[in-house]
Amino acid sequence: MATLGSASKKHKVAIIGSGNWGTTIAKVVAENTNANPDLFEQEVQMWVFEEQVTVDDKQQKLTEVINSKHENVKYLPNIPIPSNIVANPDLVAAAKDATILIFNLPHQFIARTCATLEGHIVPFARGISCIKGVEVTENQCHLFSESIGQKLGIYCGALSGANIATEVAQEKWSETTVAYDPPDMDSKHPTPVGSRRGSEADVSGLSKDTKLQALPAEYPPLNHANMKKLFHRPYFHVRMVHDVAGVSLGGALKNIVALAAGWVDGLGWGDNAKAAVMRVGIMEEVKFGRTFFSNSVRTETFTEESCGVADLITSCSGGRNFRCAKMSVKEGKSIGEIEERELNGQKLQGTSTAYEVNAFLKKEGQEQEFPLFTAVYNVLAGNKKPEDIPDLIEDKISDA
Amino acid sequence: MATLGSASKKHKVAIIGSGNWGTTIAKVVAENTNANPDLFEQEVQMWVFEEQVTVDDKQQKLTEVINSKHENVKYLPNIPIPSNIVANPDLVAAAKDATILIFNLPHQFIARTCATLEGHIVPFARGISCIKGVEVTENQCHLFSESIGQKLGIYCGALSGANIATEVAQEKWSETTVAYDPPDMDSKHPTPVGSRRGSEADVSGLSKDTKLQALPAEYPPLNHANMKKLFHRPYFHVRMVHDVAGVSLGGALKNIVALAAGWVDGLGWGDNAKAAVMRVGIMEEVKFGRTFFSNSVRTETFTEESCGVADLITSCSGGRNFRCAKMSVKEGKSIGEIEERELNGQKLQGTSTAYEVNAFLKKEGQEQEFPLFTAVYNVLAGNKKPEDIPDLIEDKISDA
Repeated sequence: MATLGSASKKHKVAIIGSGNWGTTIAKVVAENTNANPDLFEQEVQMWVFEEQVTVDDKQQKLTEVINSKHENVKYLPNIPIPSNIVANPDLVAAAKDATILIFNLPHQFIARTCATLEGHIVPFARGISCIKGVEVTENQCHLFSESIGQKLGIYCGALSGANIATEVAQEKWSETTVAYDPPDMDSKHPTPVGSRRGSEADVSGLSKDTKLQALPAEYPPLNHANMKKLFHRPYFHVRMVHDVAGVSLGGALKNIVALAAGWVDGLGWGDNAKAAVMRVGIMEEVKFGRTFFSNSVRTETFTEESCGVADLITSCSGGRNFRCAKMSVKEGKSIGEIEERELNGQKLQGTSTAYEVNAFLKKEGQEQEFPLFTAVYNVLAGNKKPEDIPDLIEDKISDA
Repeated sequence: MATLGSASKKHKVAIIGSGNWGTTIAKVVAENTNANPDLFEQEVQMWVFEEQVTVDDKQQKLTEVINSKHENVKYLPNIPIPSNIVANPDLVAAAKDATILIFNLPHQFIARTCATLEGHIVPFARGISCIKGVEVTENQCHLFSESIGQKLGIYCGALSGANIATEVAQEKWSETTVAYDPPDMDSKHPTPVGSRRGSEADVSGLSKDTKLQALPAEYPPLNHANMKKLFHRPYFHVRMVHDVAGVSLGGALKNIVALAAGWVDGLGWGDNAKAAVMRVGIMEEVKFGRTFFSNSVRTETFTEESCGVADLITSCSGGRNFRCAKMSVKEGKSIGEIEERELNGQKLQGTSTAYEVNAFLKKEGQEQEFPLFTAVYNVLAGNKKPEDIPDLIEDKISDA
């Protein structure tokens, strides 16, 4: 088989993170290392931030419970996970010898975790970030996969889609998108000219001086076909793409759109108005990506993939940003009041992303180029009303 | 102004049809002929199939009621329409001298109506069809705009979007798509090389021998900017495209997808599964267009326009195909039973389109290339169950 070649070694997989989504992805991946013993070592190490849990009236270590019960009783209760998942409280030990590192932890822990791992990982390892969102400050817009790649000196791709951890864990069917596009994907099967997307530096997150280590020839190639085998399940359909930035942006920017969709729905304007907001939102996501991440971003990532259009549809159906925005209009309350009442101290992703993106757009002098994102910010800031949205995003006749 | 040039004449507009949607479009257009007196004659003729209505306890002619009350009391009650709409029971008289003919009537009346009009219209008139759907038989797939164009020997474009007539009439905001791409759009401003989409014969519906008459130079050009001025309102945002087939197909094929979305939702699989079905559906719409309508069909028409993704989102939110399919799964009844109970003798568009499209795909030997459309047919035909859909549409690992 072409995918195996003369491989004498197998890939070892470690999952960095063990929350709701981390444990779910560990389950998916461990099922696949079992199903593909020619490519992957069966054992999947999962790094667990150790804590005490009460099980059977006894205080126990979470890792020990996971390894004996094969269930993450704290973060993914009532879901049996494969016994080839090994929970490990020692981050460096969990990642040892892993050629594939899957990052799935809250983004605020990325820096600390990478600092601990630095110098202790396989130098030719490849990463996949399952962390949703991007880091937007006034001065830059940064992908989490980039941060990880830069800090560890490895290539890091991204996984994002219309997924809810618990539903995937319950094997309710959904789709996802995996973006993977290392500079030299497969030394034995070099990427054909023209199939690479954009320039290297854009997506790998590596500075030009960092030299990415090639995967030794003893390993099966880490091409799209083999990466798909690591994540695809009958209940979790994977599509592989090259566009890491696009995959990451969709999961962040959709939350801004969901606020606008919620307002319009709350106004009682009907499904067509809501669909119009969503359509405009997808197009602004595309424009944001292409403006600030250059040619590496593909329109299709947003318009044709699970991480784009499907994730947006889900967020604008019943997601919390949508629901809170809708309530705020219906009840005539500020979104802050609704947030406080409904979210039990948590904050809406959409509002902070809308403010961050607006600060960035202002700095870049691009507010007018993104009328929907700007309208959402202005409604949040009290400068405009939800009723103004159609006028604010209208492509006026004079432009035709 | 470039759009006016040396025009000494104005365009005269006639609306052929006066149902719910026809009267709504007449309202939109008449507001715009008022707003653009440099381009259009203000009066808009609307052909009305004459009938008696009871108003103020008296039997009256519908046309007379419309012209005195400025309201279509039968098909668009309680919506004032502009007084420059003139209801006319005489089809030939209504269309006389019109340089723009807007067709908005049930598709089964196209043939008869065109037969009456033939030879009585301005030979260089341009048409726009607002009739949703396409005509699919085992042997061919035909656009309504093509039928109209062929029968009358004129060019006919299409309007379709995520629109509900009553909501547009109430000026609830929505978007729509107008496809317009005549061979020589504007004799004074010839279409630049490269901007035309695909080959002539595909979209105009005219056979090669039919010679389309050019618009005389005394008229303002009928380019995208001026066509947009005829339809765009602050509450009805228009985007102009070239792809007539794509615009027409979206409005037809979405109903097949809505059935699948309804089944999946009825199974309780959650919003992500539903979004996945919708995503796959959009991609099959694209493929259908590109396979059977050649290069004139653009992916973007489905993935980026109101007639595509937005109309699909709306249909999969609360449309009748979606609702009936969902009920059929939840109640364990056939979709026929639900249809009978819920639709008061009317039939679901999605089921007949699914059967017609399947017969066509079978004939073309292409069933396997459209796994979702084929799955919907097989569920309807009792060969498969809704639960089988993920497996039926899976892009198996071996294909990767």
